[in-house]
Formats: sequence, C-alpha cells, structure tokens
Amino acid sequence: MREMIIEKLKSIVGQENIKTDYDELERYSKDETSSVEPSVPIAVVFVNNAEQVSDILKLANQYKIPVTPRGAGTGLSGGAIPKKDGIVLSLEKMNHILELDLENMAVVVEPGVITDEIQKLAEENGFFYAGDPASSESSSIGGNVAENAGGVKVLKYGPTAFHVLGLEVVLPTGEIVNFGGKMMKNVMGYDMIRLFIGSEGTLGVVTKIILRLIPKPKYSAVLLTPFGDMETAVSCVPKVLCESGILPTSIELMDRYSVEISSKFLNDNIPQQGVDCHLIFEIEALDKESLTRAYISLGEKLQQMGALEVYIADNRHQKMKIWKFRKAIAEGIIAFRPKHCMEDVGVPIKAIPALIRSTYDIARENGVEVLNFGHVGDGNVHVTFLKPETMNEEQWENSMHRSLEKLYHITANLGGTMTGEHGVGIKRKDYLNIFLTQTEIQLMKKIKQAIDPNNILNPNKIFPDRI
Amino acid sequence: MREMIIEKLKSIVGQENIKTDYDELERYSKDETSSVEPSVPIAVVFVNNAEQVSDILKLANQYKIPVTPRGAGTGLSGGAIPKKDGIVLSLEKMNHILELDLENMAVVVEPGVITDEIQKLAEENGFFYAGDPASSESSSIGGNVAENAGGVKVLKYGPTAFHVLGLEVVLPTGEIVNFGGKMMKNVMGYDMIRLFIGSEGTLGVVTKIILRLIPKPKYSAVLLTPFGDMETAVSCVPKVLCESGILPTSIELMDRYSVEISSKFLNDNIPQQGVDCHLIFEIEALDKESLTRAYISLGEKLQQMGALEVYIADNRHQKMKIWKFRKAIAEGIIAFRPKHCMEDVGVPIKAIPALIRSTYDIARENGVEVLNFGHVGDGNVHVTFLKPETMNEEQWENSMHRSLEKLYHITANLGGTMTGEHGVGIKRKDYLNIFLTQTEIQLMKKIKQAIDPNNILNPNKIFPDRI
Repeated sequence: MREMIIEKLKSIVGQENIKTDYDELERYSKDETSSVEPSVPIAVVFVNNAEQVSDILKLANQYKIPVTPRGAGTGLSGGAIPKKDGIVLSLEKMNHILELDLENMAVVVEPGVITDEIQKLAEENGFFYAGDPASSESSSIGGNVAENAGGVKVLKYGPTAFHVLGLEVVLPTGEIVNFGGKMMKNVMGYDMIRLFIGSEGTLGVVTKIILRLIPKPKYSAVLLTPFGDMETAVSCVPKVLCESGILPTSIELMDRYSVEISSKFLNDNIPQQGVDCHLIFEIEALDKESLTRAYISLGEKLQQMGALEVYIADNRHQKMKIWKFRKAIAEGIIAFRPKHCMEDVGVPIKAIPALIRSTYDIARENGVEVLNFGHVGDGNVHVTFLKPETMNEEQWENSMHRSLEKLYHITANLGGTMTGEHGVGIKRKDYLNIFLTQTEIQLMKKIKQAIDPNNILNPNKIFPDRI
Repeated sequence: MREMIIEKLKSIVGQENIKTDYDELERYSKDETSSVEPSVPIAVVFVNNAEQVSDILKLANQYKIPVTPRGAGTGLSGGAIPKKDGIVLSLEKMNHILELDLENMAVVVEPGVITDEIQKLAEENGFFYAGDPASSESSSIGGNVAENAGGVKVLKYGPTAFHVLGLEVVLPTGEIVNFGGKMMKNVMGYDMIRLFIGSEGTLGVVTKIILRLIPKPKYSAVLLTPFGDMETAVSCVPKVLCESGILPTSIELMDRYSVEISSKFLNDNIPQQGVDCHLIFEIEALDKESLTRAYISLGEKLQQMGALEVYIADNRHQKMKIWKFRKAIAEGIIAFRPKHCMEDVGVPIKAIPALIRSTYDIARENGVEVLNFGHVGDGNVHVTFLKPETMNEEQWENSMHRSLEKLYHITANLGGTMTGEHGVGIKRKDYLNIFLTQTEIQLMKKIKQAIDPNNILNPNKIFPDRI
C-alpha cells in the first residue's frame, strides 16, 4: 500500500518532488512548537501548482490517507505535525510573487512566499503590507493565512484576515475554488475567505492569495516606559488612547522576567530593569512635527498616569534597538530555556494584570518558572512556562500540563481565549472544551464534516479527541 | 395549523408581542429594496431575549415554518422579506445597550440598537465606533452584522466584520452559542464570528454583539475635487495615496448624473457641476497643523495629476455640506425616481471607469437611464438604473432585468463582485452563478445545510433557485 501510494504521488509531482528517506521525513515530523511530540510521515510531497494539490487530495480521499499541509514549519501549535500514516504536503516550492498590482493596491502571491519578502517588495514601491507576525522573516504567507497570524501591529491594522482580499483554495475533496478579488468590499454569500483563514489547514489548501496594500506610513516613533506595577501600566492604556486620540500601531508589555531573559540574551540592558513591567508604544504620524507633538503628548500623559519614565526613540537606530530587545525575549527563551511551553492566551485588556499575577501563582504552585510578554493593546499575552534546571523531564511534563490546565481555566474565567494568534493545532486541542461548549465545538465540527467528509485534511487538529 | 402556530407563538412572547392584522403584516412584507416583490407573512413576532428566539426556532423546526429575522428593515437586497407561509422574527425590541466598557474599549449591544446611537455614545465618551453605513441613522446594528454593512469609511477602517469582537447567536435549531469576547485577537477554532457576519440571517439569529471601540480621531478635513474625466480621477488615487502616505477615511465618486440629482434634491450646486465626475476625499490627522499640511499636500498632488480644482473643507459646517451633498444622491433617487434599481457591484479600482462607461452603454441599449456613485477606495460602485417617465411598468421590468444581467456579466469579466455591501438577499440570488461556480455555491450550501438542516432560517435567500 505504502509503495503504491508513493508511486502514485511520484506520477503527480515527479520523482524529484517527493522525499521518503528517514532523515528528511524526520525534519518534517515537527514544527517550532514547544512541548509536543514529533510524528514521522510516510512521505513529504512538494507541490508546484493547484492542480497537483487537487490530484493529491483526490488520491488521498480514494485511499483515506491523512494529508497535512505545511508552509515554512514555523508554527507554534503543532499544526504542521503530520500523522504517522499520512503525508506532508509542502507548499515551499510555491513561493512566487505572481503579480504586484500597484494600480489596484494589491499583490498576488503563492502560499510559500516568506512574509518579509512581501513586506519588502511593498515598501520598495511606496506601499505597505500590514500583516506582521514576529516570525515574518521565516514564516510563509500561506502559514500566516492558515493560522490567521497576528503580531505586533494588530492593534492598528488587524490580523492577517484583514489584509486578505481573495483566495484560491483546493478543497479537501480536490475541487479548486476562488473567492474574493482585488477589492476590499465583497459580501457575495458567506465569508468563505475568513472561514479558510485560521482554519489551520483543516478545510482547504490555499494555493493563491490576493493581499491588500496600503500607503506606507511615513513617520513613526517608539516609546519605552517602565512602570512600578502592572496594574498602573495596563489601566492607563485606554485612558491615554482616548485622551490623545492616537491609535498606536503597537502596545507591548514585558514583565520583569521577560526583560531579564532578553537582557541576558543580548548582553545589554534597558533602563529601570528591575521594575514590575515595561510597556512599548509605537505610534505613526503623517509628518515629523506631528509625530514629535504626538510622542510628547503621549509621554506626558503616561507620566501623569504613573509611568516611571518615558524613553523616546524617533530615529531608525533607536527604534530598532527597542524592538530588538522585545524580539530577543523569544530568542532568549529558545537559547537558554529550550524546555519551555509558550502560550498565547488572550483576555480583555483590564484583566491582563490579574492574568499575569495568576501565572506567578501557578508557577510557584507547580514548581516551574514563568515569564510573560505580549500585546497589551489586543489582550494577547505570551505566558511562557520554563522548566527549572533541577527538574526532571517527567516532572516537567506533569507540572507543565497542570500549569496549562490551570492557566486555561483562569483565562476562561476572565472571559478570555485559549489562543490569540498561534492556533489550537495539536498542542491545545484537548483543552478546547474549557473554552467552548459541546454545541459550539460540534458546530465547528459540522463545518469540517461538510467540507471534508472523509476527514482527510489535517485530521488530528483543533478538535478534542473526546468531546 | 396557522391558528395553532400563532397560539404557540403567543405563549412564547406574550399576546402583546405578536401582530397578525393585515395592515401590520403588510408593513413587514418588504424592506427598502427597490424592484422586488413584497410578500406577506402569517405573523410578526417581537422577541425580547435569546431564549424566546430559541423557543421560536425550535417551534419552527418542529412544524417546518420559515422564519425571517428582521432588524430595522432598511436592507437593500430584500433580505428581510419573509415567505408567505412564514413568520417575521423582529429584533426591534431588543434595542438595549447592555454595557459600555471603556476600560476594555468595547461596547456590548443588543441587535435592535440603531447604529447611530452606538456611534454617539462612543463619541460622547471620547471613543469611536468605526462602522458607518450610510444608513446609520436608521439601520440597526444587527442588520449591519447580518449584511456585513460597509459605508464610506471602509477604506481606512474596514467593514462591520472588522469591528465585531464577539457574538451571541441562536442557531437555526435553537441552541444558543457564544463566540469571541472583549479582545481583538482570537483564533480558537474556525472564525465563526465572520461566518455569521454577512450570512444575511440564514445561519443564525444574532442576539448580542460585542463591538470594538477605538480612540476618536480628533481632526479631519474633506476635499471636493472635480475632474474632466473619470479615468484621470480614478488613476490618480493609488498614486496620491502612495506619494502622500495618507490612507484616507473615504474616497467617494459621483458621476455627473449623481451630482445632478443631488443638486436638484437640495436645490443647491457644487462647483463645476457639469464635469465628468467629482471625487470626495476625507482625511484624518492627529493635530490641526498636520491636517493642514496633509490637505495642502494632497490637494497639490491631485491638481498635478489632473484635478480641475480642489475645494477644502476643514470646519464642521463645510464638511457637513459636502457630505450632505453626497448623501442626498440616494434621497434624490427615492424622491424623484421611485422606480429605480440600485446596485452595489464592486471591481478593482482601476476598472471603475470602464465599469461606469459600460453602464452608460447598457442604459442606452435598454432605453433606461443610469447614474453612478460610490466608494472609489474600495471599488464599490452604486450603479443605479432609473425608469424613464415615458416607459411603462412592464417595459421597465424587462429592461431592468436585461440591464442587470449585462451589468453583472461585465462586472464579473472585470474581476468584480455582484455586491460590495448590500448583500445577495432575494434580489440578486438568481444571478449568483454569473460570479461563482457550481462548486463554490455548493460549498456555501453545504454550510447552510450543516447548520440549518431543515432550511428554516430565511430559506429563500442568497442561493439561486436552480443551480
């Protein structure tokens, strides 16, 4: 059976586009998700066009073979981890920018294009692609679409879903469909575009994406503000926004443990390192004078409301330095604490301090460590549990699962979400019923069943094994 | 049967919340859509909470009675027109603002609240609800959600779908579900929120809505620019946006016939009335000086690129005057040309002049008149066919349908959409297959069937009778 399937796959994509040797298969047995088991597939297939995807999915339906689509493999929920009896459908070779259409402020791309490439191309032409996950240098746009990637600019510009104008999708049963086009308004029937976006590769394989471009913002500044306590920091956010009339691009939060690990990674310090938390604001303006007035006004308001200090960065070098510090948190975690569990729960803004305080309690109770950073403006917090050096693997597994479960229950009680941008995938699926009722989960399952009757496409994701 | 159903409905909502006299029923036999047949239901039921909606839908499933949800009845696709053997489920009495939560920048409302009320409440508190359909003074927020209403601010802020953080929905089978919460990022399973938004009352009855608030923009200006020809007007849009770095709130277009009817309605003129078209730009800035620099720069660029003149309005009175003129187009149509057919096709920006020119040809060929206005920034054009006074009703019906069909074919060939903001409803359903393949329509139908197996909820909308 396995040999026959591989022969048939070869006839679809050609010998050169299929890998079956163990070393390669192992590379495709995991993504960048912490704390999940790898799983080695029977083959990895590299497709070049929608027709090949269609043929593979038809074959998979005929022989009931699970298919897991994969972009750059940078996902953080295990969404690209295949089944042991299944195949990986890699979109890496579909990495072409098909059309840059400045007259219609749109760009048409294949799913394997790295997000950064799109951002750079847009900017070279005076435009701006506003989707900006932290992983933009390595993640593919298809992966961004599959997970509805967020990032640091969601407060002003929204998640990936807000930048997609059109999609070509191969359905799990092999048909090729197209929705949308190069226009921003479109209400022709159900919003299939937003249904496929964030469906984590379970409802279709996206083979073409039309993205919206907007004018490139010309001036921006970054403010770094230490706070003596998190409650003061977070509660001033809605107030300063309202009073200033400014909708920042980003409002980021780093707790003291995040600041510590980043500082250690970069071997560099930021001002007032020992305080409870730091906020980072990025704002944009139409001209330099307006930008200056805006950051002075914002800075004054922040100080009136309890910021210990306001450090302003308005040149490229200074801005990069602050963002580098923020982005080094994740790098520091990977470098110094490879055994960790990074979450991305979301809560209403006001509940962020309560959430973060509770993670300190959870960590203490379970003998693990924790740090918190994230996006205050949209309520999204990367709670990250860390294995203490002295703890053994088994203890860590147990402690981590207990910590996660506690975290999710607290988040649900605060009116929050299990995942703001990373997705449910395989990592979080068994916790879904903490947040959604049986009816709500069944409703999603009915959609899955209607579109993928043989449960071929990424079958072991999102839904709990037992509900 | 009819009497029994009415008795059961009374026991759910109380005698005072059901209407069955013919005059009332007739009022609910139509909405504000031009050129569609009214249809008188057996009863109109006014609900007060989600539980009543649930009971009604369970009853409807038991006896296979079609239910058509209805907000303020201002829809423009016949989405609220009931079936003759069905009931109207009115959300008018669920018109309470449940919570204004400034600390989380959110407002929680019932579906029957008039959109304007939400905008005003937000603004009184220094915040801004960015959903802004032209009908905001009369349409309900539930209707905005059902149709994914657009309006004049979509270019900068997006359609209704971008402002909804959470929904409570009663499923067609009577279960009450909740998705989302008071946070902007949420990727927990499929995007059910966006699936319900724009589903035209066919997938569920929305009973509670959490909306996002943002800081209120403090300064804005409006620019009115006549152009000698539409091609020049439209082609300068992407260029001036790119060069200036400004993303306007609105870029509206009025062709000369739109300007004429508005002028007649208001008994007032705007400068250079006889030219091919006028554009209206609205821009926002953080302070007055920046605003002034922005409109001067934008104005200069527009003149360099062919605008005949640029009239700037930066005080409330002047701005209102321009917007009043723009909004009087629709009022003029209703007042002077009650027999008309208003469309809202969308095309890529660059194709707008070709689309509008083609409507002049279509009108001439079919002996009708036409005017065009709409939202250049998002490609959405309100092509409006008008019955000439000398034409009889039957000729008008025939000519209108021929004109519509031609318009849709041309729009589809330009890569466009049949409807940008009004919805398919009953008016446009038989044309859907000009734009979507059988597979694409079937995919949507499968979702409908999965969620509403008895086809109870607004059953005769969106999908063509024959596909």
